[in-house]
Amino acid sequence: MLRPWPVSLGDRIDASRDVPLYMQIIQALIRDIERGRLASGTYLPSSRELARVLGVNRKTVVLAYEDLIAQGWLESAGTRGTRVAAALPDPVNRHRSDAEITMSSAVVDYRFAPPPERPIAVSSGPGLKIDEGAPDGRLFPAELLARAYRAAAHRGAQGNGFQYRDPRGSPALREAVATMLKSQRGLPVTAENICITRGSQNGIFLAAQVLVERGDSVVVEELTYEPAVAAFRALGANIVPVGLDEGGIDIEAVEHACRRNAVRAVFVTPHHQFPTTVSMRPERRLRLLDLARRFGFAIIEDDYDHEFHFESQPLLPLASYGPAHVLYVGSLSKLLLPALRIGYVAAPPQVIDAIAHRVSITDGMGNTLTEDAAADLIGSGELRRHGRKVLQVYAKRRESFAAEIDRLFGDLVEYRMPGGGLAFWLRFRTDLDRMEARAAAMGLRLASSRSFMTTGDAPRGLRIGFASLNAYEARTALAALRQAAG
Amino acid sequence: MLRPWPVSLGDRIDASRDVPLYMQIIQALIRDIERGRLASGTYLPSSRELARVLGVNRKTVVLAYEDLIAQGWLESAGTRGTRVAAALPDPVNRHRSDAEITMSSAVVDYRFAPPPERPIAVSSGPGLKIDEGAPDGRLFPAELLARAYRAAAHRGAQGNGFQYRDPRGSPALREAVATMLKSQRGLPVTAENICITRGSQNGIFLAAQVLVERGDSVVVEELTYEPAVAAFRALGANIVPVGLDEGGIDIEAVEHACRRNAVRAVFVTPHHQFPTTVSMRPERRLRLLDLARRFGFAIIEDDYDHEFHFESQPLLPLASYGPAHVLYVGSLSKLLLPALRIGYVAAPPQVIDAIAHRVSITDGMGNTLTEDAAADLIGSGELRRHGRKVLQVYAKRRESFAAEIDRLFGDLVEYRMPGGGLAFWLRFRTDLDRMEARAAAMGLRLASSRSFMTTGDAPRGLRIGFASLNAYEARTALAALRQAAG
Repeated sequence: MLRPWPVSLGDRIDASRDVPLYMQIIQALIRDIERGRLASGTYLPSSRELARVLGVNRKTVVLAYEDLIAQGWLESAGTRGTRVAAALPDPVNRHRSDAEITMSSAVVDYRFAPPPERPIAVSSGPGLKIDEGAPDGRLFPAELLARAYRAAAHRGAQGNGFQYRDPRGSPALREAVATMLKSQRGLPVTAENICITRGSQNGIFLAAQVLVERGDSVVVEELTYEPAVAAFRALGANIVPVGLDEGGIDIEAVEHACRRNAVRAVFVTPHHQFPTTVSMRPERRLRLLDLARRFGFAIIEDDYDHEFHFESQPLLPLASYGPAHVLYVGSLSKLLLPALRIGYVAAPPQVIDAIAHRVSITDGMGNTLTEDAAADLIGSGELRRHGRKVLQVYAKRRESFAAEIDRLFGDLVEYRMPGGGLAFWLRFRTDLDRMEARAAAMGLRLASSRSFMTTGDAPRGLRIGFASLNAYEARTALAALRQAAG
Repeated sequence: MLRPWPVSLGDRIDASRDVPLYMQIIQALIRDIERGRLASGTYLPSSRELARVLGVNRKTVVLAYEDLIAQGWLESAGTRGTRVAAALPDPVNRHRSDAEITMSSAVVDYRFAPPPERPIAVSSGPGLKIDEGAPDGRLFPAELLARAYRAAAHRGAQGNGFQYRDPRGSPALREAVATMLKSQRGLPVTAENICITRGSQNGIFLAAQVLVERGDSVVVEELTYEPAVAAFRALGANIVPVGLDEGGIDIEAVEHACRRNAVRAVFVTPHHQFPTTVSMRPERRLRLLDLARRFGFAIIEDDYDHEFHFESQPLLPLASYGPAHVLYVGSLSKLLLPALRIGYVAAPPQVIDAIAHRVSITDGMGNTLTEDAAADLIGSGELRRHGRKVLQVYAKRRESFAAEIDRLFGDLVEYRMPGGGLAFWLRFRTDLDRMEARAAAMGLRLASSRSFMTTGDAPRGLRIGFASLNAYEARTALAALRQAAG
């Protein structure tokens, strides 16, 4: 009837920690059992004794003992007191160190796939961030958003709408998105063609899941959107880069790729090519659709910032005239807010069903409260009004951004005024490696020129978002970039 | 200078459709070019003539022509009028049918992976649904939620917080979750150990992504959570089912599996086994950790409804005493609302970084507005208060549900009162195939008994959620189930 416990228990139980004393006692006891410091059958001090040693209320110890008995860690041995359950196994090769092991100090002894050296997202943190073409979230009226959420919350509570629901998304939002795509983008769709996703990246990821099997080839432009390529690669795709120019993707190269590989998908951003901002010309669009028909591949059309086109109305997507060959991916991130993570895929119903199955595996469904709030904002016309308002703001920012680039960089930089989208594509007549290293050293965070390149000899440049920056911020950002250029 | 267009244009342009006339003209014209009905170089009617034929304002036609010229579909040939751009390719093998092709009528001519015959989510739709243990969303005060969102919206707008941010989630929520796990569940964590996910399914999916490579083995119980198994399978895992009993997973079988396979992960739900509701006994917990150490596998601990334990305090998770061996997955879906899709993974920082990389590929990040609102609800103590309130409600519902089962089914059913969680596991002394077919025919939607089974000879049963049903609904649901039993 030795009572060796508490082993240094006093050091570990501390009323000033933000963990309740009761929980601290349970924790300490289970950990000591787990580490082999308390063998099965060992008798514990009485609750009175332990309470005295620890300077805590006896009730606290009684509660902890009772719970541990209920759970099977301890057992009551009548008048002889409380002991560690006899059924517990003897320690085999447990950690016996006295140090408390935390999730941060623990040595991970299982295998896991480490992240790449250069993360595919621009790091968050201190310093000045230049994005790749994000909207200015400050322009969206917070009160409008709050009201849409309030209405959706009350409606959801009344209609028992907060449950697990359709993986394809909120019926109201699927309907609203279908109407929007039909009337504003010429897509021949109804709600049954829509699956709501968590932003367009999630749409690309889900589309890739149903299209790509290990070893399949996916054609991308030599300069493209890295998270999409990462999604294809994660599925074991063979990435086939092809050239592009100011008219968009090199169609001959796509045909060549199809003759040599089992091409299952071609990923494009025809409206505003990512990162170069050019629009794919009509003849290439028609020829790409012809190739899709001939070689039976799917076109993943990522139309990530459709609304923002400055010199004409937005171009109709490939999906509007090639509905049998295109998985159309879009998002409300630019028009509404990135933070709400609402995107969508438009495709034939049988493909939508396949995508919905992948949703069930990936995350079950979306945030239906947010989806219902967004449906309200579309249905009431508020989102469209907001879009028209910010288009004006962004058009002005684009002009003054260009003027500032000219003023600061002169011949050091080469660019075309983007016809649409929220970013410039800048090519530098300077050592870009050195410039990017300097920018990093200065705390200037921006997407690496390497992040856009799928081949080592693709033309290098930087994609600089202008829309999220007010006049002062734009000057600051460009001045910092100019400084990095040396 | 023939002007063959408009081909049946009058039939397709219709002011009563909810697509603007301007958009309808653009659509019709591009589609006719795409289908080869309008060859390159073809002259179009003058805007005046077309406006007259269609009975629309001439301005509408002018705008459509101007946009199509700007986009390169048409070109102006001076006084000779407007023609289809000469650079457009001749049609190769385009669809020439007169029928309008929509995304629903289109024949998909690319390969995609079809969904399984039995979807892994219980279908949404009409009829009575019995869930697998969802909370009652109606018990959460909508106004509390609305207020949390309003505060988060205004704060976000002020702090420019609506942008693309850290894939690991909102700093406020990571901090709040870490504090909650530390003080209420004994997990030795800080915010750097937390990655916010879209519900626990997304947490399992992300954990699987970093742990499992094609051909690796994953051990699961013979009765388990199908969406998790589907996630492992999607990654090419070899699923190794092992037995379980009222004490939890069969440890000898796990050891046996480890001797024969490269086991990378063991998926368990130790607190309330899914679907059988039993808690894993302390001796099995210790032995499972011992095996993890010996064979170097990771334990994916899914603690999906931690708060709801009725006969003692909730049990400390494996992760609280085995932090080096466990990826801990949890969610606010049961405590708060499924609709908000907030879950989390707790793991060592280097594993969290690897998971964050997968977040970048999967969906970029979570809904930070929702995350900030949830952080408020945790920080203010509202969520905990709500949890205590509904625990009382659910405890009563559990009692009366059991009484109703006894009354209606008597000897037809066998079950143990669940010590925790929001569902009963029912085994029937009747032909379950026939019963489930009848339930389906009656419009009663519930998870198939097959959905839990990873081997054909696993014990069959139904998991019946009781928490989301008020007294009337519970009686209705059980009466329907009784009717299905024949």
